[in-house]
Amino acid sequence: MRDDESMLAIAREEALLGKAEGGVPIGAALFTVDGQLLGRGHNRRVQDDDPSMHAETAAFRNAGRRPHYRDTVMVTTLSPCWYCSGLVRQFGISRVVIGEATTFHGGHDWLAEHGVTITLLNDEACTTLMRDFIATHPTLWFEDIGKD
Amino acid sequence: MRDDESMLAIAREEALLGKAEGGVPIGAALFTVDGQLLGRGHNRRVQDDDPSMHAETAAFRNAGRRPHYRDTVMVTTLSPCWYCSGLVRQFGISRVVIGEATTFHGGHDWLAEHGVTITLLNDEACTTLMRDFIATHPTLWFEDIGKD
Repeated sequence: MRDDESMLAIAREEALLGKAEGGVPIGAALFTVDGQLLGRGHNRRVQDDDPSMHAETAAFRNAGRRPHYRDTVMVTTLSPCWYCSGLVRQFGISRVVIGEATTFHGGHDWLAEHGVTITLLNDEACTTLMRDFIATHPTLWFEDIGKD
Repeated sequence: MRDDESMLAIAREEALLGKAEGGVPIGAALFTVDGQLLGRGHNRRVQDDDPSMHAETAAFRNAGRRPHYRDTVMVTTLSPCWYCSGLVRQFGISRVVIGEATTFHGGHDWLAEHGVTITLLNDEACTTLMRDFIATHPTLWFEDIGKD
């Protein structure tokens, strides 16, 4: 069984792939609660010109169709935005493991109120990655979260 | 300027395309507040084996990248689920026009609480379409909303 840090390492690898491609450096992966990898992905706004593919939606898509998600864990480098929090709530994903919520605070408190188990790891590497990205690409970042 | 009924007619066309393809018959379209069509789409779970493409996310994707959405209206044949409601909230879409909320009641009350203008048209054609689909394809429907 994978621990939270090793699951986050996979999401962070995805974020770094996104960075290397010139994209928004956020990564995610969907696992079973036993740590089996179901799907992994990263934000694809720049790469595919696709505003609908946040890291969590990409991991969810790559996991393929499933009858339910109550035995799954979404692992993401950054606190999930409302769009991705809505995904977690609608599909009944039981737990979210978050790299950091320092550079952006999304909907994870709302998810906790609705029974989702939230684990915030305060990972320095994730925080540094996003802080550098926001400082160097503010327009792209604000586009990605619909703020201008 | 298009009125609400003519915008809904486009979303309903999308839902019927989805039905004809053997998919989940929900359609959506994103317009400017002046009624200019930005993107239209329908649920693609069956067609693309893609659980992330609900009608609203498909319309959003097909509208392409935009710096902000405060001048846009999401029109959908069915009350938006939490995933699609989260999309509307995160990206600041200012208004949602809904065909029906009889067969499924999603997150539109929550959106209204957060300042989104909600118009519910109680369209009989949309209701009949979903009622027939749920009766004939219950497993596919519950998969689409993560319930089993």
